[in-house]
Amino acid sequence: MNDFRPIPEVEKHGEFLQKVVDLLFKNIVFTTRQDKVVLWQSPEQLEEQFDFSLKQNGDEHEKLICLLRNTIKFSVKTGHPYFINQLFSGLDPYGLAGQWLTDALNASVYTYEVAPVFTLMEKHVMREVNSMIGPDWGDGLFCPGGSFGNGTAINLARYNKFPDTKAKGTCHLPKLVLFASEECHYSIHKFAAFLGIGEENVIGVKTDDVGQIIPENLERRIQEKFDDGSAPFMVVATLGTTVRGAFDPIEDIADICKKYDLWLHIDAAWGGGLIFSQKHRARLNGIERANSIIINPHKLLAVPQQCSILLVRDKEILHKCYSRGAEYLFQKDKHYDRSYDMGDKYLQCGRKCDVFKFWFMWRAKGSTGFANHIDTLMDLAEYFENQINVRSDFMLVSKRQYMNVCFWYLPRYLRGKTNILEHSGQLQKVAPQIRSVMVKHGSVMLGYQPLKGLPNFFRFVSQNSALTKKDIDFILNHIADIGEELFK
Amino acid sequence: MNDFRPIPEVEKHGEFLQKVVDLLFKNIVFTTRQDKVVLWQSPEQLEEQFDFSLKQNGDEHEKLICLLRNTIKFSVKTGHPYFINQLFSGLDPYGLAGQWLTDALNASVYTYEVAPVFTLMEKHVMREVNSMIGPDWGDGLFCPGGSFGNGTAINLARYNKFPDTKAKGTCHLPKLVLFASEECHYSIHKFAAFLGIGEENVIGVKTDDVGQIIPENLERRIQEKFDDGSAPFMVVATLGTTVRGAFDPIEDIADICKKYDLWLHIDAAWGGGLIFSQKHRARLNGIERANSIIINPHKLLAVPQQCSILLVRDKEILHKCYSRGAEYLFQKDKHYDRSYDMGDKYLQCGRKCDVFKFWFMWRAKGSTGFANHIDTLMDLAEYFENQINVRSDFMLVSKRQYMNVCFWYLPRYLRGKTNILEHSGQLQKVAPQIRSVMVKHGSVMLGYQPLKGLPNFFRFVSQNSALTKKDIDFILNHIADIGEELFK
Repeated sequence: MNDFRPIPEVEKHGEFLQKVVDLLFKNIVFTTRQDKVVLWQSPEQLEEQFDFSLKQNGDEHEKLICLLRNTIKFSVKTGHPYFINQLFSGLDPYGLAGQWLTDALNASVYTYEVAPVFTLMEKHVMREVNSMIGPDWGDGLFCPGGSFGNGTAINLARYNKFPDTKAKGTCHLPKLVLFASEECHYSIHKFAAFLGIGEENVIGVKTDDVGQIIPENLERRIQEKFDDGSAPFMVVATLGTTVRGAFDPIEDIADICKKYDLWLHIDAAWGGGLIFSQKHRARLNGIERANSIIINPHKLLAVPQQCSILLVRDKEILHKCYSRGAEYLFQKDKHYDRSYDMGDKYLQCGRKCDVFKFWFMWRAKGSTGFANHIDTLMDLAEYFENQINVRSDFMLVSKRQYMNVCFWYLPRYLRGKTNILEHSGQLQKVAPQIRSVMVKHGSVMLGYQPLKGLPNFFRFVSQNSALTKKDIDFILNHIADIGEELFK
Repeated sequence: MNDFRPIPEVEKHGEFLQKVVDLLFKNIVFTTRQDKVVLWQSPEQLEEQFDFSLKQNGDEHEKLICLLRNTIKFSVKTGHPYFINQLFSGLDPYGLAGQWLTDALNASVYTYEVAPVFTLMEKHVMREVNSMIGPDWGDGLFCPGGSFGNGTAINLARYNKFPDTKAKGTCHLPKLVLFASEECHYSIHKFAAFLGIGEENVIGVKTDDVGQIIPENLERRIQEKFDDGSAPFMVVATLGTTVRGAFDPIEDIADICKKYDLWLHIDAAWGGGLIFSQKHRARLNGIERANSIIINPHKLLAVPQQCSILLVRDKEILHKCYSRGAEYLFQKDKHYDRSYDMGDKYLQCGRKCDVFKFWFMWRAKGSTGFANHIDTLMDLAEYFENQINVRSDFMLVSKRQYMNVCFWYLPRYLRGKTNILEHSGQLQKVAPQIRSVMVKHGSVMLGYQPLKGLPNFFRFVSQNSALTKKDIDFILNHIADIGEELFK
């Protein structure tokens, strides 16, 4: 019996929600290869076909269901194995169940009393993930995305060197500079600007031909900056760069950070999930020497959007840097130990619960399940790279280090040439044109981009556990078929 | 037919998800007054009663369902009308449906091609909400919470005055200062620290006895800061302060901002939802004179966590301040108009879709539905205040302006005293003790806090549409019963 609302209303809501769930099951959660990844419409077409209007009066349930149906129809199926456009793909049923539960609880995690289960769960997950990094690792935050986590780390690094910035700001300080790979994620620049450091004061470090920071170049840039009176305070290394999936040489970088007393932040948003794989964990060697690390379980581990973890070695600094003790939330006279109120060490106030879906997937699969997922994907990435290497109509951009395989499709007139980069102008147009055809078919969504003067190339990323070698053959043949047709 | 996964696995997942949904319907979505708001356990007790452990191997479905059941059992029912602890309460079935859909699509909103429906929907919702502010209002962002939105606005204000901070940082600038109510939300200080401005450079402006900024004090503080060589750049006004629900006098503040050429940001996270109410919209008069406004539909409008909108009058500044044009996402040679790729003006990269649940609720209820919700709540708040005023065992802290009613429960020995503040030491202990009993009963969760030297008082907030006058009578009598027992 429900005595908050009239029973007919409750029944009506119940029926409606069950219809919604049925619709979701049928049209999103369980897709097939016969489904398109996207039913492409240009913005102008979609404006005509979808009723976005907002009105004075509400719609009936029948109309609402119709709107949901259209939303699904015109949305991209990011769970489809042929969605290879970003650093996430797939839909895990346990992750989804976890997300649906936290939605229904409509939880916000700041104090123990308001989110008791999720507060302790965050502690457990954080402890477990920290212990997978190293024995002296201690604290962390759940962040609304890796960009925000990187920004939070930059601020921690600055606070660590100049603790009075919290109260006094930076106007009394010399010019602060940090160092990052020229292939680092753009969030480093965006947040450097946001934090008052300035984009220009993110000093780009040269990378080698597979995309790794060249340590000698890093050290030279640091010395230059000390010499010109700037105040270096931080190096950002990347484990799994966005485009090439490159892994910066952590041990060398950590040595340099030690020598110059710089905070080492590791952006392992994409690569960090490897902590679960016995077979591939060695690629993260040295990660425990960092001061902070960002890992996005919503990338490699296929946790639903968003789940992003900032790990911090120093157990005290988050509280020191971020706490403010707002008395309407963190009252001093509570009837339980206030140290459980973790919201005070966060920049945010209200905060969505991102821990549960991750914890629940972990329970459903076990650490072994995550490891198997990774190892399978790595095999697929290797298979993809091998196929590129054996075919004359494709060419690798640089040697694969991870799940990313960067490659060109070569029109007939470019095959067998010794230096295809002399034809950059032509090559630049190939990937966008092929992609445009694929997206309009709705067959495959595969990202492309230029990089460091190299013309547009495709980036395949192995990350969806439903993908098979047969799929990879299909995707390559599909690209080749379109290419043959377009570039006769 | 599903050909990605073996059919038995799909069926198994389907059955499991249906079980999860049934569990959520039964135990969270449709609660009754007989349910407790919380089954209180101390952190130590909960550690013993809940299996948080993470293991090598995964659990069976039966065990997983049991874990979900326990998660619900020990979690706070924030949809319960007696959850009055924060600035959100309730669970809207249409909002929940919208959230479940976006979860199933696992969408991330940065480019049109990856989120076509949600991209256009954001444009429509943003245009509609802007038009409710004023005719020349133009742009905006969806933010992961109001704190982040406030921080984004502070940075916009700084960029507006000193555009070269984006590239060069702030080390060449004088000391930047901003002004905000001494009762403003703590995110202003947290983000001032984060942005390199410093907490001390948030200049607190005195408030009057209902909690509104005193304009004369604001102007005096601004002059002082100009005189001492600082660089004032911004005023933050609040419409609906966290504790007292106070509305700062916008017209006066806007005049001062105009006079001194300062950016006016309005934190209407809590009060901004009033734009929907014909009856109460006048409380926002002058809001259109701001440069930026934060409104959290997840507060007053009961949209599920999180939905937070930063509105910006200037149509160009977001792009100028935040864009970076990362080429792996915002390729220049796309097959559609790149201006639809809104991710470039965001600080975040991957971003959860927060627009759909809001849009869908709006479609289900119409603007009229939101208006009715607000007007009902305002009547309840008035009723609550009246009850406090007519009873001798309660006392109002300050006159109500909005949904917040701040009050003391008076033990017998304090009733009828002319100046109860002489007994602050005793009063300080009353609210925490009563609250502790209520939370341990699981009957009512009602927040309390001290403020500006006033001893701990309760804050009732009218925000759950399932609440009735009968409930209010119950809550007050319940507090009184506990108080009588505790303070004989």
